Amino acid sequence: MSSAIDFYFDFSSPYGYLASTRIDELAERHGRSVAWHPFLLGAVFKLTGQRALTEQPIRGPYHERDFARSARLLGVPFTLPAKFPFFALAASRAFYWLSDGDQAKRLAKAVYRAAFAEGRDVTPVSTVVEIVKCLGIEGVEQGLELPETKAKLREATDAAIARGVFGSPFFIVDGEPFWGHDRLAQVERWLETGGW
Amino acid sequence: MSSAIDFYFDFSSPYGYLASTRIDELAERHGRSVAWHPFLLGAVFKLTGQRALTEQPIRGPYHERDFARSARLLGVPFTLPAKFPFFALAASRAFYWLSDGDQAKRLAKAVYRAAFAEGRDVTPVSTVVEIVKCLGIEGVEQGLELPETKAKLREATDAAIARGVFGSPFFIVDGEPFWGHDRLAQVERWLETGGW
Repeated sequence: MSSAIDFYFDFSSPYGYLASTRIDELAERHGRSVAWHPFLLGAVFKLTGQRALTEQPIRGPYHERDFARSARLLGVPFTLPAKFPFFALAASRAFYWLSDGDQAKRLAKAVYRAAFAEGRDVTPVSTVVEIVKCLGIEGVEQGLELPETKAKLREATDAAIARGVFGSPFFIVDGEPFWGHDRLAQVERWLETGGW
Repeated sequence: MSSAIDFYFDFSSPYGYLASTRIDELAERHGRSVAWHPFLLGAVFKLTGQRALTEQPIRGPYHERDFARSARLLGVPFTLPAKFPFFALAASRAFYWLSDGDQAKRLAKAVYRAAFAEGRDVTPVSTVVEIVKCLGIEGVEQGLELPETKAKLREATDAAIARGVFGSPFFIVDGEPFWGHDRLAQVERWLETGGW
């Protein structure tokens, strides 16, 4: 069995959302699994000096247009939440609180769908708790406050940075890094060919 | 005759170079021409707060890898000049000094080839003069110093900014903006379909 594709993303990233709708199927076509790794992009921006796309002069309006246009091309619903950019701390912690990888992936998809298909504000703890409960999972209120939950998210963010991850989405395929949902065609080609 | 595709680029942009090897053929497949518009990305960065990719922590090494990897995928020669990033003032002025559009485009391709296929330093005036002379054109030394040459480049940069151009390469197709050589597949689809 070949190694998993590492998929790094921030829950507040529209391009991460777009990638999340495609990466599992893409990997499956090549007999690969995907390890999902949410992290806090804000921690990376402190190191790189970047800012959220829509907060940047001139670039902001372009990216709002490009989010929606790219989603239409993929046939994926898209709504930019009224509050954007946002800080997805609770959702990220909930992901790492879940010890079952499949449950965590279902949560990630549900959070992304709420944020960018429905345009909901997923920053309140109460919203994240509701999303987790809809998956039939109890106990998340307490789980979010556990020191080990908080530590897992910090460690995941540090591990992403240590691997050179600086944006969302970011993929590592057999050691090869790819940044951006617009590199998925290259990711697929890399899987097909083993590199070029 | 449909309107031309506007192609904005900075001569110091590796992704602009990659796009320059493809944009004319792409346009031709759809019965379009391309209007080439070099501009000074540094002037835009002053407004957006961006820095050259390779000067950014963590992002720099990724982009150096991605330049070369993207070039290999396209089958295009690529060498990053030892002096990078650089300020392509003389080459940009030479482009606007040439009143013949076909000559200017040949110059642009020759400058990009020198910089990123051969890895030459194209910042010295003497190098630009040599490249222009190889195209059989005389008088560029004096032309670069003309106030109207300098004014044309300033105006072109201001015009790019006024149209929302914030990176290189940048394309505008029938009013629709696309940033990045990795959007060329979308540009082509836009030409095929008239939008989505």
